[in-house]
Amino acid sequence: MADSPNCDLKSLTPLQLFERVTEQGEKVRALKAGKAPKDEIDAAVRMLLSLKLSYKTTTGQDYQAGLPPKDLVLINNGTTKEEDEDLVDPWNVQTSNAKGVDYDKLIVRFGSSKIDTDLINRIERATGQKPHHFLRRGIFFSHRDMDQVLDAYENKKSFYLYTGRGPSSQAMHVGHLIPFMFTKWLQEVFDVPLVIQLTDDEKYLWKDMTVEKAYEYAKENAKDIIACGFDINKTFIFSDLDYLGASPGFYKNIVKVQKHVTFNQVKGIFGFTDSDCIGKISFPAIQAAPSFSSSFPQIFNGKENIQCLIPCAIDQDPYFRMTRDVAPRIGLPKPALLHSVFFPALQGAQTKMSASDPNSSIFLTDTPKQIKTKINKHAFSGGRDTIEEHRKYGGNCDVDVSFMYLTFFLEDDDRLEQLKQAYTSGELLTGELKKVLIETMQPLVAAHQERRKQVTDEIVKEFMTPRKLAFEF
Amino acid sequence: MADSPNCDLKSLTPLQLFERVTEQGEKVRALKAGKAPKDEIDAAVRMLLSLKLSYKTTTGQDYQAGLPPKDLVLINNGTTKEEDEDLVDPWNVQTSNAKGVDYDKLIVRFGSSKIDTDLINRIERATGQKPHHFLRRGIFFSHRDMDQVLDAYENKKSFYLYTGRGPSSQAMHVGHLIPFMFTKWLQEVFDVPLVIQLTDDEKYLWKDMTVEKAYEYAKENAKDIIACGFDINKTFIFSDLDYLGASPGFYKNIVKVQKHVTFNQVKGIFGFTDSDCIGKISFPAIQAAPSFSSSFPQIFNGKENIQCLIPCAIDQDPYFRMTRDVAPRIGLPKPALLHSVFFPALQGAQTKMSASDPNSSIFLTDTPKQIKTKINKHAFSGGRDTIEEHRKYGGNCDVDVSFMYLTFFLEDDDRLEQLKQAYTSGELLTGELKKVLIETMQPLVAAHQERRKQVTDEIVKEFMTPRKLAFEF
Repeated sequence: MADSPNCDLKSLTPLQLFERVTEQGEKVRALKAGKAPKDEIDAAVRMLLSLKLSYKTTTGQDYQAGLPPKDLVLINNGTTKEEDEDLVDPWNVQTSNAKGVDYDKLIVRFGSSKIDTDLINRIERATGQKPHHFLRRGIFFSHRDMDQVLDAYENKKSFYLYTGRGPSSQAMHVGHLIPFMFTKWLQEVFDVPLVIQLTDDEKYLWKDMTVEKAYEYAKENAKDIIACGFDINKTFIFSDLDYLGASPGFYKNIVKVQKHVTFNQVKGIFGFTDSDCIGKISFPAIQAAPSFSSSFPQIFNGKENIQCLIPCAIDQDPYFRMTRDVAPRIGLPKPALLHSVFFPALQGAQTKMSASDPNSSIFLTDTPKQIKTKINKHAFSGGRDTIEEHRKYGGNCDVDVSFMYLTFFLEDDDRLEQLKQAYTSGELLTGELKKVLIETMQPLVAAHQERRKQVTDEIVKEFMTPRKLAFEF
Repeated sequence: MADSPNCDLKSLTPLQLFERVTEQGEKVRALKAGKAPKDEIDAAVRMLLSLKLSYKTTTGQDYQAGLPPKDLVLINNGTTKEEDEDLVDPWNVQTSNAKGVDYDKLIVRFGSSKIDTDLINRIERATGQKPHHFLRRGIFFSHRDMDQVLDAYENKKSFYLYTGRGPSSQAMHVGHLIPFMFTKWLQEVFDVPLVIQLTDDEKYLWKDMTVEKAYEYAKENAKDIIACGFDINKTFIFSDLDYLGASPGFYKNIVKVQKHVTFNQVKGIFGFTDSDCIGKISFPAIQAAPSFSSSFPQIFNGKENIQCLIPCAIDQDPYFRMTRDVAPRIGLPKPALLHSVFFPALQGAQTKMSASDPNSSIFLTDTPKQIKTKINKHAFSGGRDTIEEHRKYGGNCDVDVSFMYLTFFLEDDDRLEQLKQAYTSGELLTGELKKVLIETMQPLVAAHQERRKQVTDEIVKEFMTPRKLAFEF
């Protein structure tokens, strides 16, 4: 056995290293128990110490017998993720691939199901409506139990929609609209109640921000959400800081979830450490609780068994995997989910957009001129370096951010296909493709601004008042 | 250096062991860095491993560099407390001394202040009332910042009282009344508002109990508390499960505390582990929040700087040490405290009474006959084995539970002193002392039962309704 085993350990994953340390520990114990020669025991002990050191270097944590390294998919610390795996959790999305995260792999790792043609056809049959282009184009690509939601719906058993937003700043970008645009469509075609959670408490806990500021952002963000066109009679928007102190059912569900999740579990799922504040550690229960209809007694008449369907970006899935794990143990139904891909930054699909970098996004407050400048200056191009090369070899739609944005915002399938053909063949130049995007985004953002102007403080207040909606339960 | 150092390690405290492991680790590193002979390094490594094993055996935890063992005073696991130290935390009280916990030592360890004659005289001057016998007899023996409360009170700046109870079962015992009897007196002599927290959420989290059952116990316990004679116009009683969902201010203070306390801190203070549920881990913030007047906007008109004074048994101090640590960091005043000793079990002063053992306590539901039987059968006696010896050597009031109970419940100072003299001199026999206690407790419990009968569900509901009290702020 080599004295310095580190050379061949670098290729091991943390879990493999953990297993090596455990094996070596057992070997040392066996040698000692069998009264093996001193030299042999010493060598085995040195090897054990060396393996523990490698484990610590790789994982940043001391080896603890019986405590394998946490679920690496979800660690919010890029240093320990496995080589070549995309990092996806509620706070980070990172991939080395310019095409973006590998979503097929993510479905396997997260254990969700692909939204396939059969499911899309079933949605069309159940609603009698042409499926939304987010479904047709694989933007909502993954689900949990959507088939069961449809089974029940076909048997006249309704459900409710739950989505949310963490109001971290006053300005939202166009990527933030994706779940709301899709949720609005779902609400219309299925005709169901919708609850929208604004996690201002989360933002207070994670950011350098006062409670008052977080609540102010929540109300500002509510205006942008309302401007998407939600029906006030069918939609309840709530801030945690506000609603938690105003609902007889919400806290009871929170404390039920909190009783059934340990620190070990949230450590594994969210990568929390001993240095995190107890607010962060218990927060996942607050995002979980709206998955249960008894959190909204005013809407569901106290009924606790109404099925919930959650449309969200896939990075929020860890919260709801936890929720689905807890639900049967507290006698409540598991929420179903529809997962979207991430909205890419202008600079490329390696990361999702960030509200803190104004150039990474088109904001809902941008002027037509700002939109034009941002797209021309920052949108990562899949085109060739020279016009000659572009004409000869064509552009690459798989990595071109302007084309990606058009898949989100250009509803006309034929036009999108034409653009793809023309760009790939080299007929359409990068500047021309960007012009199409500019002409798509400018009126879309302007129309949003126009609708947002109509949203008065009184309208926000009404949306955020706990009340009965236009449904009987 | 001995090969097996364990023999002489057993006498070390966890902290001393921790320091030994740290020193030995440094020694190994120094030997390796200095390229010392192989044998010497091997011996030092073996010693290190052996020390780590001793550390683990003693503390139940792996040695972690830089992480000393947690505050041993507060660990809720009797196995790791220091030799000869009393174990005192919100869930356990243990001492090997028949006289009970050493309270003078506890004051030093907890860093609180003794309630001395000067302070008692000041209370008398400020209120114009004879001090309560709980003060005169050292039953409330320790405080934090009571002098500041009196400074402010003398300058016409008022305060409010906060106390509480964890409603773990329907029946309360006489020991549970101590903080309420004293709080009632404080409320009367200072004429201040009082809030009483019933931590039904805590009981749900810690016990095998439904949310509904915990809430039911809270309402039942409220009846016993109300039967102590609190003024409905000056007192607000609340269940967490109820009030958290009904107050615009309470949750905001909870989340503020939760942001400023880490898992490491609650691990040190309360002995939580990674296997504890996230509800327990975040609960201390819920017991902390009523220390801030903004948790009760309906009483204090939204004012957040009203001083709070908390009368409680000393085992609850860890919650409020944490609260006082957080308060200045969230811009709110530190609560002041008055600490009581523990109420002894009938079997002796080594532990506090337990509601789960019917023979350890006199319950508020006991009949006169049950009270008589329990005292005669179970009350630990400080008397001698035979009448002859007792007459000759006298009884020991320091360990006699009947005498201890009389110090709590017999208000007449002269009578108590007479009994003490007579028992100590041997003139009064154990049976006679027990008879005095029986005759004291029977009417006291009967009167409580009579008052409790008058407490209707409507009265409970009114006490528990968030509302303005008879004070202007």
